Amino acid sequence: MISVLLVGTGNVATHLYTAFLKADTIAITQISSRKLENIPEADLTIIAVSDDAIAEVSSKTNNKFVVHTSGGCAIDELKNKNNKGVFYMLQTFSKGKEVNFNDVPFCLEATNKKDQQLLDAVAKSIGQKIYKVDSEQRKALHVAAVFVNNFTNHLYKIGNDICTENKVPFEVLLPLIKETASKIESLSPDKAQTGPAVRKDKKTIKNHLDLLNLNQQEIYQLLTKSIQNSVD
Amino acid sequence: MISVLLVGTGNVATHLYTAFLKADTIAITQISSRKLENIPEADLTIIAVSDDAIAEVSSKTNNKFVVHTSGGCAIDELKNKNNKGVFYMLQTFSKGKEVNFNDVPFCLEATNKKDQQLLDAVAKSIGQKIYKVDSEQRKALHVAAVFVNNFTNHLYKIGNDICTENKVPFEVLLPLIKETASKIESLSPDKAQTGPAVRKDKKTIKNHLDLLNLNQQEIYQLLTKSIQNSVD
Repeated sequence: MISVLLVGTGNVATHLYTAFLKADTIAITQISSRKLENIPEADLTIIAVSDDAIAEVSSKTNNKFVVHTSGGCAIDELKNKNNKGVFYMLQTFSKGKEVNFNDVPFCLEATNKKDQQLLDAVAKSIGQKIYKVDSEQRKALHVAAVFVNNFTNHLYKIGNDICTENKVPFEVLLPLIKETASKIESLSPDKAQTGPAVRKDKKTIKNHLDLLNLNQQEIYQLLTKSIQNSVD
Repeated sequence: MISVLLVGTGNVATHLYTAFLKADTIAITQISSRKLENIPEADLTIIAVSDDAIAEVSSKTNNKFVVHTSGGCAIDELKNKNNKGVFYMLQTFSKGKEVNFNDVPFCLEATNKKDQQLLDAVAKSIGQKIYKVDSEQRKALHVAAVFVNNFTNHLYKIGNDICTENKVPFEVLLPLIKETASKIESLSPDKAQTGPAVRKDKKTIKNHLDLLNLNQQEIYQLLTKSIQNSVD
């Protein structure tokens, strides 16, 4: 049995707590980061709080092995005295939407083999996609995630805006959105690229630009240029 | 029984032919656009050729009702003498990958009610998502599709590049990509937006920019600005 202490009450902490409760090999305790007077001991202490609070919260525990869950923070953001690590789940968590942890990539970092094995065991108790990822690699993943999640979602928003302006239901685009995401499970993004930019179809590109507002035009032009440069 | 003549041998024509073969209510014939000396008669003639060839191919038939399948072309790109229409499927078709036509939105345009009903019946023989879409609306959908498909795929490519440069497997990002696409089936893109841009987290944005090449930085900055303007 591995004892795990979860500090935090946000989205990530809540989903993790629910999952650990069901795991046979984990004894889970959760506390709020606002009540740190009596921190219980544990084999592993997972600090799942906002990036800005990691330093302060971690400085208040003497537990033997403390990890944070942030993709954007290096391991040395932790200010506890003992062992440090990172337990980063590369997924978007929504309130009220159940998480299937079997589909969540666990990106784990520790400073010695024993700690890494403990993190592995804890992650395996609730999931199955386990990766050893150091702070530099995690930084890269975090930026890449901004492109494939945050920025992609913004392109969906622009698609939605164009539909609304032209009185077509956005739902017409949903099957295409789904297929675009599913296609690159079997095809590299290079091979999956289609459309007027990669075909250098100037006539269609001009027709499209005529239909867009200034902000949309700027994005259309920059991404078209970037696609064309990437295949030159 | 509705007789359908399919002109063209590309991706779209091939997938359509396979689907119509299985439809009880359709008698399907397919011909190459290079052999237009003897064009068979049909209730509906579907010209599934490249945008540039639509005018020429359509000018060679006297059939009573002729449609093209292009999202990027207006209905008057057709140069046949009789009735005109559009049979546009808003999906990305890949060679060798089977298409589930039940998931394909059929965007149909005709110039009279009887033709519209015929297109409806033909689409319903192989699919179930049927939309009446005029040339202006289709133009808008076509641009929106560039954003949610072509440009999104390019963001996947950038994510892939960042992973390769930093020696992390791109597959770590696949669950996030899938979840991002599936999230907006139940959440509007506005509500689904997360990340440093919408949080105005300047520290993380700076850290990210430091890791990117010039082209990636330019895209990161423009999309970050666009996200921030959209929530102001």
